[in-house]
Amino acid sequence: MGEFDLITRYFKRPATRSPLGVGDDCALLAPAAGMQLAVSSDMLVEGRHFLSTVEPARLGYKALAVNLSDLAACGAKPLAFTLALALPGVDEPWLEGFSRGLFALADAHGCELVGGDTTRGPLNICITVFGEVPAGAALLRSGARAGDDLWVSGSLGDARLALEVFRGTLSLPADAFAQARTRMEQPTPRVALGQALRGIATSAVDVSDGLIGDLGHILASSRVGATLDADATTALIAVDTTGLPAEALRTCALSGGDDYELVFTAPASACDAVLQAGVNSATRVTRIGRIEADAGLRIVDAGGAPVSQRFGSFDHFV
Amino acid sequence: MGEFDLITRYFKRPATRSPLGVGDDCALLAPAAGMQLAVSSDMLVEGRHFLSTVEPARLGYKALAVNLSDLAACGAKPLAFTLALALPGVDEPWLEGFSRGLFALADAHGCELVGGDTTRGPLNICITVFGEVPAGAALLRSGARAGDDLWVSGSLGDARLALEVFRGTLSLPADAFAQARTRMEQPTPRVALGQALRGIATSAVDVSDGLIGDLGHILASSRVGATLDADATTALIAVDTTGLPAEALRTCALSGGDDYELVFTAPASACDAVLQAGVNSATRVTRIGRIEADAGLRIVDAGGAPVSQRFGSFDHFV
Repeated sequence: MGEFDLITRYFKRPATRSPLGVGDDCALLAPAAGMQLAVSSDMLVEGRHFLSTVEPARLGYKALAVNLSDLAACGAKPLAFTLALALPGVDEPWLEGFSRGLFALADAHGCELVGGDTTRGPLNICITVFGEVPAGAALLRSGARAGDDLWVSGSLGDARLALEVFRGTLSLPADAFAQARTRMEQPTPRVALGQALRGIATSAVDVSDGLIGDLGHILASSRVGATLDADATTALIAVDTTGLPAEALRTCALSGGDDYELVFTAPASACDAVLQAGVNSATRVTRIGRIEADAGLRIVDAGGAPVSQRFGSFDHFV
Repeated sequence: MGEFDLITRYFKRPATRSPLGVGDDCALLAPAAGMQLAVSSDMLVEGRHFLSTVEPARLGYKALAVNLSDLAACGAKPLAFTLALALPGVDEPWLEGFSRGLFALADAHGCELVGGDTTRGPLNICITVFGEVPAGAALLRSGARAGDDLWVSGSLGDARLALEVFRGTLSLPADAFAQARTRMEQPTPRVALGQALRGIATSAVDVSDGLIGDLGHILASSRVGATLDADATTALIAVDTTGLPAEALRTCALSGGDDYELVFTAPASACDAVLQAGVNSATRVTRIGRIEADAGLRIVDAGGAPVSQRFGSFDHFV
């Protein structure tokens, strides 16, 4: 099977929203009047972003999910994406599974594949996603203010728990592992919540490298500090962690990575509006701290005492 | 050096046109009223799109050039791009050279880096480029009509000649090799010509996989055929090829690949307008054939006799 047959068989579908579908030199996009286009690119590499054992359908899902998560963090509505794919060879069952998982999530969000590239090479998946947001309404990292509450969506730490089980440093009962593995392989991008938070949240970021590291981007961009409740955060681990050491659980929840939840800030007066945005988007939201004028991040336990444990943030080059 | 330091040092520059520069979850783009956004993604892999011996600055240049060439083929004006980069490690001289070559071409076209991703992995460069074109004015592959002239910009075959010298199948004098190698490593995207052809050309495509293969996309999309003058095409090789076999020269010019010229069609009555577009964009344009109602491509010599030589087109999976 040649390159163009491969594209036609697995990735070409009739264009709906875009003026032009897959197959010309460029795709054409026309955001509606008054809308800005939000754009994000993520590249996934085997052994770093996914394990070689992952089911192709779950990988196709995840490759798009991590990009949709960036749109969610901006409050943008997904529109379209391009897919560039380097493949070691033509593996039809793999392509069938990958494209099935990819399109299942794309269809759930009305996000259309409009173009891309395929080449032979070490497995590499690069998606660029496009969303639209009313001009000036995008959620940024730079809007947090002292006194704002600090919130996070959904659950935290489960993906890292699954990874540690794969690495053999922790063990979980089969049910809990299966649940954690699904969180690692099929994270839920918080697309509806992100849009519901427009006009309410003062800043937002998605948690890909770990809560502490990604929160750090908000603190740096907004030139503020924060106090974070470690116990409230660790309580957001979804799977049953009975018997696991408290320190490991804090590491997973606070700096685990691969969560694809939204961490965001909002004025204390907007608390009810945040809770309503959570209800409207069927997404749990939890208050885990407060923004303060003093620079730096202070991590405390439920009683307010400082937590001395040290945490890292995922960095591809450290 | 960590991932964020790497981005800051080599890839972060102040935003100018985009409402937001590198460093938030998404970049924001706002095409002007009445404009469509043209989008294209290309992925470059070592050993397939470039040799390991290429200078980093030339590679940075080429990675963007092949994407700008797609915009040119649509008649779009470059606006912005995202860069996703997988690197085996942090090699500062390489990064310095790569980013210098990349930004030199970006600046020459007013095309701004607005976001991207960096990760560790086998070297892989994925750029998604954005341009704007008045709604409905994009050059497509599907507009060629019987009776149209078939045109090509610039020169053809030099990049393939350089590749064959690297492979040891041909030899060239040092001067000619240097010139051919520059064509391979630093192709000129025909951005100004593409825009000048809006409203004149009936179809266009850029020559990346070889003239015959890429012309085939126009013929298939437009449901037409063509006659191509092989001798007029081979005459477009820029370097001195004295002594090289005629068959090899035809292969290079007609199916060589990596040319990044525009092949396009226009009504015979628009001949003067095409020539003027070439003058206005300081780009040579040459008539090399004619579009016909009969499907298929007929390759003839200067005397009109059929050329029996067989040609392939580059395909990453064949």
